Amino acid sequence: MSLSTLMRATVMYAAGDVRVEDVPDARLVEPTDALVVVTRAAICGSDLWPYRTMERTETGRRMGHEFIGVVDAVGDDVSTLRPGDLVVSPFVWSDGTCVLCREGVQTSCLHGGRYGSDGVDGGQGEAVRVPQADGTLVVLPVGQDDALVPSLLTLSDVMGTGHHAALAADVGPAKTAAVVGDGAVGLCGVIAAKRLGAEQIIILGRHPDRIALAREFGATDVVGERGDEAVERVRELTDGLGAHSVLECVGLPESTRTALHAARAGGAVGRVGLPQEDVVPDAIATFFENVAISGGPAPARAYIEELLPDVLAGRIEPGRVFDRVGPLDDVPDGYRAMDERDAIKVMVEP
Amino acid sequence: MSLSTLMRATVMYAAGDVRVEDVPDARLVEPTDALVVVTRAAICGSDLWPYRTMERTETGRRMGHEFIGVVDAVGDDVSTLRPGDLVVSPFVWSDGTCVLCREGVQTSCLHGGRYGSDGVDGGQGEAVRVPQADGTLVVLPVGQDDALVPSLLTLSDVMGTGHHAALAADVGPAKTAAVVGDGAVGLCGVIAAKRLGAEQIIILGRHPDRIALAREFGATDVVGERGDEAVERVRELTDGLGAHSVLECVGLPESTRTALHAARAGGAVGRVGLPQEDVVPDAIATFFENVAISGGPAPARAYIEELLPDVLAGRIEPGRVFDRVGPLDDVPDGYRAMDERDAIKVMVEP
Repeated sequence: MSLSTLMRATVMYAAGDVRVEDVPDARLVEPTDALVVVTRAAICGSDLWPYRTMERTETGRRMGHEFIGVVDAVGDDVSTLRPGDLVVSPFVWSDGTCVLCREGVQTSCLHGGRYGSDGVDGGQGEAVRVPQADGTLVVLPVGQDDALVPSLLTLSDVMGTGHHAALAADVGPAKTAAVVGDGAVGLCGVIAAKRLGAEQIIILGRHPDRIALAREFGATDVVGERGDEAVERVRELTDGLGAHSVLECVGLPESTRTALHAARAGGAVGRVGLPQEDVVPDAIATFFENVAISGGPAPARAYIEELLPDVLAGRIEPGRVFDRVGPLDDVPDGYRAMDERDAIKVMVEP
Repeated sequence: MSLSTLMRATVMYAAGDVRVEDVPDARLVEPTDALVVVTRAAICGSDLWPYRTMERTETGRRMGHEFIGVVDAVGDDVSTLRPGDLVVSPFVWSDGTCVLCREGVQTSCLHGGRYGSDGVDGGQGEAVRVPQADGTLVVLPVGQDDALVPSLLTLSDVMGTGHHAALAADVGPAKTAAVVGDGAVGLCGVIAAKRLGAEQIIILGRHPDRIALAREFGATDVVGERGDEAVERVRELTDGLGAHSVLECVGLPESTRTALHAARAGGAVGRVGLPQEDVVPDAIATFFENVAISGGPAPARAYIEELLPDVLAGRIEPGRVFDRVGPLDDVPDGYRAMDERDAIKVMVEP
């Protein structure tokens, strides 16, 4: 980008109407801001919810919350970053110092917020003003074109989200994990379950390319059925008991029910799929079976430092979920491709 | 009791219709059974659900699942018990050897079951056939009239249930716990939260006698409001954030909502109140705040051994929740008293 008065960024105006257009240049506003020139961004499965349902607006909505970039400038109060640093941002910004950040829930930071709202840029553009930069950004010890960049980019959201699902589902050694959903989050859930030592990893999905990748990531069994039949298959694979840990990576009512019933007595469901229904169903059955339900938006900021060594060492390769790469102008077609399942996940090179 | 052909036991025929009457004598059936002569039993808050709603039946339903007694006889396969042992039973029977028992979910034992059904006696009677006796019963190192007996009796259910709520809510040192409900379970939840090191314990309730006992058990704050006002008060008491741990000890829709919203971001709700609605509400709000929801019927069998030393040493006194004691013939009036909140919890001396 040229640091003139306009830059290119992604704006959604309505379901199916995504455009890349000129917007005001990102610039420092608060002394705690950093200005980051985006070198890689991504389209998230959660971006598909507005892509399918958003009401038309005149002003549009700036999109994107997963990005890596180079620090261009920092505000006076920023102490941990300097121009030229390659950084990754988690999908929300957070100060890192409030009580909830210290308790590990950076997604609920008392002074945090979301990209693309409240005058903050989205990640699918040439540059982003990052509020609370010291608390938010993590410097990466590689060059901006390093072969590890796709995997490092997943630390902004999708890999941290898979990891969050696995932690919430209490995955551990000698346990069985079932992963509901074969999208990019589910695939990262398989990586996370494997990394945390699960002995058996059952992926519930039916897309051959994704299932193949899930197997390479460590899935030991595949269940292509849905609903009650899927629950039945998971039980057959687990001595009739169900899985200790179930990662709910979709958020639809049916997948949620499947997840709850695929868990064994005393098991846990980690939910990271954005719930499309405002109740958790079957509360009495899960009560009598002591099935725990936890999860939510991943505190990705906390997990970047935890997962970074494994990415840098090549022990996990979550960047393989990107099966399509294109320039910024291809973003609208990237949404289409992900929506139609032509692509698992799209990486953008502004 | 005389070991003749009939004994006295409690039978419920319909909502409000509880009788103590002659029933066939308890006797050994399976080689894994023990025959226990009941010395103390209790009426449970969960007995009040059928007391309020049960449809009339001709045969009636045998009641009671909390008892201490003396082993009268054992089947040929019972190896850990002998006649004369004073024992406490958890509220369900379990073999202690199946995979789910080994995983600590004795309430879901593959060969377990509930008192008062399937030809097994209820606890509110003169004697009980205890299936899977080796896995179920725990020998008590005191005499049957020891002053500790009321507290030991709570290990059969109510104290283990409060403990389960506290564990499910992830209570720990330096944390804030909120206990929703001032019944016997909630009071034991206060004991459990204190025992696990909670720094602040907020009891939600409005009955002066129960609140007074809660304070003696370790409650630091009292919230008499309900619903949104109660949530607001809990937030005021916790720097605007809500409690780290919330123990849901009621099970009604309103108390469940209160519990979910009284939890802070990243917090946990431990539910032990039998859900009266088959959904967990407000699934989106709890998702965005990463509030975990777990719990269910307490694996009381596992907790007896954990809590027993503290009871024997007098470090916890859960037996204080019994504020009424009577003979078996007073059981029907005991139900009435608990239902009308004339009594917190009733102990029975058959």
